[in-house]
Amino acid sequence: MFTFPLVNTCSSLGIGLAGFGTVGSGVWNTLERNGDLITDRTGGEISLHVARILVRDPAKTRAITSEVPAGIFTTEWRALVADPAVAIVVELIGGTTDAFDLVAAALRAKKPVVTGNKTLLAERGGELFALSKEHRTPIHFEAAVAGGIPIIRTVQDSFIGNRIHSFSGIINGTSNFILGRMTEAGLTFEAALAEAQSLGYAEADPTLDVNGWDAAHKAILLATLAYGFPIDPAAIHVSGIQQVRQADIAFANNLGYVIKLLAVIREHPDRAVEIRIQPSFIAKSHILASVHGVFNAVAVHGDAIGEALFFGRGAGQDPTASSVVADLVEAARSLRQVDGHRGFLPYCESGKFLPVGDTSTAYYVRFDVTDRPGVIAEIARVLADHRIGISGTHSPVNPSNPDAEFVDMIFLLHTCPFGKLQCALAQIETLDCVNSTPVVFRIEALA
Amino acid sequence: MFTFPLVNTCSSLGIGLAGFGTVGSGVWNTLERNGDLITDRTGGEISLHVARILVRDPAKTRAITSEVPAGIFTTEWRALVADPAVAIVVELIGGTTDAFDLVAAALRAKKPVVTGNKTLLAERGGELFALSKEHRTPIHFEAAVAGGIPIIRTVQDSFIGNRIHSFSGIINGTSNFILGRMTEAGLTFEAALAEAQSLGYAEADPTLDVNGWDAAHKAILLATLAYGFPIDPAAIHVSGIQQVRQADIAFANNLGYVIKLLAVIREHPDRAVEIRIQPSFIAKSHILASVHGVFNAVAVHGDAIGEALFFGRGAGQDPTASSVVADLVEAARSLRQVDGHRGFLPYCESGKFLPVGDTSTAYYVRFDVTDRPGVIAEIARVLADHRIGISGTHSPVNPSNPDAEFVDMIFLLHTCPFGKLQCALAQIETLDCVNSTPVVFRIEALA
Repeated sequence: MFTFPLVNTCSSLGIGLAGFGTVGSGVWNTLERNGDLITDRTGGEISLHVARILVRDPAKTRAITSEVPAGIFTTEWRALVADPAVAIVVELIGGTTDAFDLVAAALRAKKPVVTGNKTLLAERGGELFALSKEHRTPIHFEAAVAGGIPIIRTVQDSFIGNRIHSFSGIINGTSNFILGRMTEAGLTFEAALAEAQSLGYAEADPTLDVNGWDAAHKAILLATLAYGFPIDPAAIHVSGIQQVRQADIAFANNLGYVIKLLAVIREHPDRAVEIRIQPSFIAKSHILASVHGVFNAVAVHGDAIGEALFFGRGAGQDPTASSVVADLVEAARSLRQVDGHRGFLPYCESGKFLPVGDTSTAYYVRFDVTDRPGVIAEIARVLADHRIGISGTHSPVNPSNPDAEFVDMIFLLHTCPFGKLQCALAQIETLDCVNSTPVVFRIEALA
Repeated sequence: MFTFPLVNTCSSLGIGLAGFGTVGSGVWNTLERNGDLITDRTGGEISLHVARILVRDPAKTRAITSEVPAGIFTTEWRALVADPAVAIVVELIGGTTDAFDLVAAALRAKKPVVTGNKTLLAERGGELFALSKEHRTPIHFEAAVAGGIPIIRTVQDSFIGNRIHSFSGIINGTSNFILGRMTEAGLTFEAALAEAQSLGYAEADPTLDVNGWDAAHKAILLATLAYGFPIDPAAIHVSGIQQVRQADIAFANNLGYVIKLLAVIREHPDRAVEIRIQPSFIAKSHILASVHGVFNAVAVHGDAIGEALFFGRGAGQDPTASSVVADLVEAARSLRQVDGHRGFLPYCESGKFLPVGDTSTAYYVRFDVTDRPGVIAEIARVLADHRIGISGTHSPVNPSNPDAEFVDMIFLLHTCPFGKLQCALAQIETLDCVNSTPVVFRIEALA
């Protein structure tokens, strides 16, 4: 025998599971498999059971490890929130409309909420966090950022004594998988995306994964935890991986870099916070370059901890369910306490935000040009006028015909404010020889 | 302006700091620097101040960022614990005698304890955890394992819904630094140890760092959290890095490995738990091979999270202080709650333990031999009699004199139970040609 619970006097707390897809089924299975272990680990004080499940179609077959009593299904979210057997509400329906109403109703009913809905919190967190504070009822959202990696609790609790200098994170597994397949197998973006979809790593509509906004929503939540003030999604700079081509990957490789979709959050000495999500060149020797496939990783730099890094599965049924279940235990604890939450967000009314134009890195810029004598001179002249230094230029040469016309012209540029670069690029775009909007990636100097 | 506390109605909680050396000064400095930030982040509900400090010599000069009022020093630990201004006791005096009495007294006085004393908890945790449970007063010990990496809270809270399959960790920074310098700079063990001491990475008496017991104490705490039953230090297998030589490092390198002091904790399908600390060959491509210098890393495998890894500074003033301060906030929260701890240890009365003789890996064995025809045959015969497979043998050759006598004979052995290997080695040690006890390192097949 392995476990002998020392105490086992708890009454079980009912969970209302709103949504019973991949993650919802994972929560059900995890509680079935490890529910007794959780009770043992809490000294017999916390026991959880699913009391009500919101579904669209109760008759649908589901991949779960034990039978769900038919009577606990409902198709009406109001019935789930109002059910006296439901003490904690888990929102897994997604979207920002019904999910908002459901979470708001739960908070008003003083039922703690657990959610993995990063879009809801990034876009409408202001309203929900205000309701949470008004009703002294917590929203837990570990599952919203980086799946099974406990980065939310780490920042909120373990690093509470740290001023957070920066986060650098790979927090969208789909993009990372696609860039990895383009790098390792030489696939085009389109072929790598199709592979991700066939493996179930990308949604039928992969827009938010590849355009950077899934990562941006997560970055907003991390920044809100670290700096405490409300962050307007419209104010942050987001670009995705759709424009990454084999030529870029090969060029990065030759210079000792890999291309990753990187979320960068950084507090500057004057307390202004920079948040941006972009395809970035990072040195192959950096630990983040070793984050492959659908894994996620977040590097954190704090004034007391120095450097730390957290690595794990960023999505998937069981890792995400693990985070939901940990939040359920935390929610259950908060219900047993007089006022037992861990502080509400935001904890500052306002903060300073560094406009993306003022953020500085080195850059890789690819121009789509018409090859004729003078192209490099014309582009270089505009850059010089804007006092932007060039560290290299390159156009891919066709080995079998070195005089073939090129169409891509690459410039590596010294560190300068992004706004200055944008001014120069706007002017370059008006040149006859430049055929479309230049593609810009950051070259990150990571610690 | 950056921070506008939304609420600020708390009364401040007094801390009794027992010990004011490196970590104690770090706690003082962190609270000075970030105390207001902590209060903001808790919605104004938690404020901490140092009410009493236990020191040997109040007159000693200390490296702290603000003046300590002389009146708060005491040289008598009983005065600190009994002081009504002290609500939480931080034990940083080290050792297992006075520290034990102090922690026990604090628990009896229902004052939560924060400690970084892994030796105390690994060796006398049974008694202290029983007192903690009896008096419903928590012991927090994030600082005891891996400095600034929040692995304790992660296992205890974030992974509460996971059955933990394994930990593989580099959890002694001093050993890791020494092995790194031997590998990168070709230093002898003695020279690398001297360098670690001159840099302040190793104590004047580095015994527990190099003999593996510092890592073992941390492994005991991790296993206690994951499996919940009391673990007798005498039952676990510990070997240190004193026997690692340049020849071993070079041989590992040629095979694609690096040598790391690895703590392995693993639950087998029958629930028996394996715990061992040994110098181990790990593949250069594994992420743990990239953990350099005094950094620590713990890889965790759980049934829901899959694989995860946590990396950061394993020691040092500020990272350790960060963990103490996070525990202080947790302790402060528990004081505001009716019964607000997170469950007591152990949570099972007993568990199964896999004897080290039953643990299996492949092995690297170095014999100190007298070179004469027949040496390899004699050793190989004994191994064959015990049905242990040999995957390779090697003796370093002197390029300028290939017929010079060798003294080291290396065998690589297929996976077998360690007990079987020990039987064979005991017999080999009696051979005339073998001059001393063979040196054994594990070859780990990490996921």
